[in-house]
Amino acid sequence: MIELGWHIIAELNGVDPRILDDEKYLVETLKNAAERADLTILSVKTHKFNPQGVSVVVVVAESHIFIHTWPEHRYAALDIFTCKSEESTWKAYKFILEKLKPGNTQVIMLKRGIVTHNNAMNLTVNAEGTTAAKGEVIVE
Amino acid sequence: MIELGWHIIAELNGVDPRILDDEKYLVETLKNAAERADLTILSVKTHKFNPQGVSVVVVVAESHIFIHTWPEHRYAALDIFTCKSEESTWKAYKFILEKLKPGNTQVIMLKRGIVTHNNAMNLTVNAEGTTAAKGEVIVE
Repeated sequence: MIELGWHIIAELNGVDPRILDDEKYLVETLKNAAERADLTILSVKTHKFNPQGVSVVVVVAESHIFIHTWPEHRYAALDIFTCKSEESTWKAYKFILEKLKPGNTQVIMLKRGIVTHNNAMNLTVNAEGTTAAKGEVIVE
Repeated sequence: MIELGWHIIAELNGVDPRILDDEKYLVETLKNAAERADLTILSVKTHKFNPQGVSVVVVVAESHIFIHTWPEHRYAALDIFTCKSEESTWKAYKFILEKLKPGNTQVIMLKRGIVTHNNAMNLTVNAEGTTAAKGEVIVE
């Protein structure tokens, strides 16, 4: 496989709903995560939902970080996609985790790029930055 | 599982590199895809890389659509995340496929939300909008 990007997809559960509804805090967290991971911030776009919930997208030269939050479920969907390095992507993720302190998380590292054998997408399942298992999802 | 969002992750291979380097065409395609899927566009952010490649993020009230392209590899990474409906998410995807005409695609539909059993993330593998297989990735 020619790896062109590293994409962390995380389900964050059990997060303090006040944090998940705090637009400013979320923006700062994602921006700081990008800086920690040596990513170049191009723009930040946020949307505050009524009565609750926030979307933040940080577009970086090396792709993007976004979070969509559902404070009423204490849940956030987090994606970090970079074409910098796998290590850098995990660095941003760990920083965000420290700031959001979810009670429970599910995370996958999806390697994006060109699969050199037919019709397969590689999924590397990863917890805490160390490969826990490797799965492959075959699409018809 | 409480489903809160539907996330299509697609690897598009064998796309005409002129299309993949055409910022205006990509923006129009993603905006039209959002409209087809009855999504409300909040903002569009693009970045043109030197010497080639484009990133486009369309932030919609129902989450986002992004594409990152590598014309030199005839490859694009496409993500469509909506909290509208699974059907709507596939509608946007199919529209984009018609416009980009990849020679080969891998796609997964990831259902985002709260998993009610411990430490599992459900992945529904999907091709052409019909469920082909269902996989589950267990994280330590």
